[in-house]
Amino acid sequence: MTNTADPDLQRVQHTIHAVREQAPLVHCITATVSMGVVADGLLAAGARPMMTETVIEAPTLTTVADALLINLGTLSTDAVEGIPATVEVAVRQDRPWVLDPTAIGLAPVRTPLARELLNSGPVVVRGNASEVLALADQGTGGRGADSSATTDAAHQAALTVAGQTGGAVAVSGAVDLILDGHRELRLERGTPLLTRVTGTGCLLGALTAACAAVEPDPVQAALAATTWMDLAGETAAARAAGPGSFRMHLLDALDEIGR
Amino acid sequence: MTNTADPDLQRVQHTIHAVREQAPLVHCITATVSMGVVADGLLAAGARPMMTETVIEAPTLTTVADALLINLGTLSTDAVEGIPATVEVAVRQDRPWVLDPTAIGLAPVRTPLARELLNSGPVVVRGNASEVLALADQGTGGRGADSSATTDAAHQAALTVAGQTGGAVAVSGAVDLILDGHRELRLERGTPLLTRVTGTGCLLGALTAACAAVEPDPVQAALAATTWMDLAGETAAARAAGPGSFRMHLLDALDEIGR
Amino acid sequence: MTNTADPDLQRVQHTIHAVREQAPLVHCITATVSMGVVADGLLAAGARPMMTETVIEAPTLTTVADALLINLGTLSTDAVEGIPATVEVAVRQDRPWVLDPTAIGLAPVRTPLARELLNSGPVVVRGNASEVLALADQGTGGRGADSSATTDAAHQAALTVAGQTGGAVAVSGAVDLILDGHRELRLERGTPLLTRVTGTGCLLGALTAACAAVEPDPVQAALAATTWMDLAGETAAARAAGPGSFRMHLLDALDEIGR
Repeated sequence: MTNTADPDLQRVQHTIHAVREQAPLVHCITATVSMGVVADGLLAAGARPMMTETVIEAPTLTTVADALLINLGTLSTDAVEGIPATVEVAVRQDRPWVLDPTAIGLAPVRTPLARELLNSGPVVVRGNASEVLALADQGTGGRGADSSATTDAAHQAALTVAGQTGGAVAVSGAVDLILDGHRELRLERGTPLLTRVTGTGCLLGALTAACAAVEPDPVQAALAATTWMDLAGETAAARAAGPGSFRMHLLDALDEIGR
Repeated sequence: MTNTADPDLQRVQHTIHAVREQAPLVHCITATVSMGVVADGLLAAGARPMMTETVIEAPTLTTVADALLINLGTLSTDAVEGIPATVEVAVRQDRPWVLDPTAIGLAPVRTPLARELLNSGPVVVRGNASEVLALADQGTGGRGADSSATTDAAHQAALTVAGQTGGAVAVSGAVDLILDGHRELRLERGTPLLTRVTGTGCLLGALTAACAAVEPDPVQAALAATTWMDLAGETAAARAAGPGSFRMHLLDALDEIGR
Repeated sequence: MTNTADPDLQRVQHTIHAVREQAPLVHCITATVSMGVVADGLLAAGARPMMTETVIEAPTLTTVADALLINLGTLSTDAVEGIPATVEVAVRQDRPWVLDPTAIGLAPVRTPLARELLNSGPVVVRGNASEVLALADQGTGGRGADSSATTDAAHQAALTVAGQTGGAVAVSGAVDLILDGHRELRLERGTPLLTRVTGTGCLLGALTAACAAVEPDPVQAALAATTWMDLAGETAAARAAGPGSFRMHLLDALDEIGR
């Protein structure tokens, strides 16, 4: 049984401040196409990015990181080889890590890899509805990076995944759903412009890892990152003339929110 | 014999609308350096990008794409291995694909690869004059990504390439030339600022693929993409203070043109 | 013995003009995450970027470049394999090349690679204090891409490295230190916002290579690039509302400075 609770927004504010104060080093193995916006977004939020993915360097470098993001988008050969050993180090060192199963479903390598990684206990799994459905083996995924299902359709799948990891699951969409085995939160914030800039989903995953570095409760970490991104998106949308200026204002707003 | 025709601008407008309505999924294997601007440009135009390049995933993922772009810039080992099998799937499934032979000429892998790929019938080949000359084995290419020849100098080479593919060839430059075996169009639009931002040529190739997904005539698809980009460039140039703000306004303008 | 000299700012101005006039082609093997901003920054400065890193193409392509940047950030497998042969060609052809030992220290591949590359005589080594200390085997490096030491702490290490290469060393930070075996310059310009955008350090390395293509004195080339970047940063900071708009204004300002 899960209970729907009101989001604890004071604690969200506290987490955002803690990221700015502690400037966590977030090791990101992420889609090549989104590396730039993920790194700029983390820096705008006050965190620090690190992006090495080779198996010969990534596991060693992750020993000094405060959190790890594994995002399966584009998935280079370097990343396929580097991810398992890097996650193993994070687990051994008790560092929080976040799984973003970008565009799984049809993809023959990342789909089984994502399911296998659930056994290594990501504190948060963040994806869109299609990706969470595919992760729970209840759907064939979306087309490309976009979801073809609603957040509500992925509710049962999210519970299944949370049951496997023991952590939180965050389903992003027009409605954001965050849950673990005990609690359940829904947010209806943000802006459709977030879907008009590449890598904003990847950045949300990275921001979730930054928040998990300073906030031990996975549901609260996911809530803080999602709220941060949604509010920054709303602020940016009010200032933007289109997707290009929205991207710029989004980075400015990540730096402003909650100050 | 070719005839110079007036561009059919009403049909260009129709193609732009169709991209926005149908939001084609465009699979791009492209230069690493330009992935970000290509993805953001496609999203601004209303299309959807997908960027996987490994041979173990790209051929499978391209089965759900509406069009494919192969751009040979930077050319990672993953891309060298992934491109032939991915093009083969696109051809087998009768999906339009566009070849952008970026920086061929001197490069020992991409130059023969580009010539070999002509046999797989790209609906449009888009390049600058030096690249089209090198493709037709009539020149040694430019230096880096820039052309060292004028559009007119590549006219015969463009005809030769069009004869090989049976599709259209678009030569980009201060003057844009678009032709197939029967028709020939020239545009003199755009702005030199387009050469001051990385990846705008790659983005034009991706936009051409997006247009080819909704417009079966290759010449019209190339014309629509070129016009879209040139007009967006002109709009952005009027608003920009330099290359940084031009890049932002270009993305906004891609979203605005023809609405 | 080294003498602290006043920076020759007229010669800096001359170098900036020469980059704009000659538009040097700068071959960059650099961190994947920073490729976009490095390419856009070089274009804004009036230079031209080229970014191929595979061993099957990079050594050939570097034969037409005017300068080479080797940056060890992220360091893909393609780059690990491509760097030694590419540097060898640059040395053989007497082209200036710049080494940016990003995030060395803990990293098991790039750290010995950086030290080995010192034997190939980079005209300038550019890094933060932690990186220069690690290069001289006097420290364990920073965490991620950030320095955990001050510029002054790296003074002796910089002299050691300069002694090994016979070229210049530029230590970037709140205070910038540029020296060779004979001269020593300090700058205290720029803005902390430069640390809030990914890849600005990588861009400074690339700009140094562009300047080295037109200015034979390594100390002057490093001084010109550092001054250019610092002044552009100050101009951009005065206009920016946050790190997103700062990034855009920085590119505009690189195009403006010294005109």
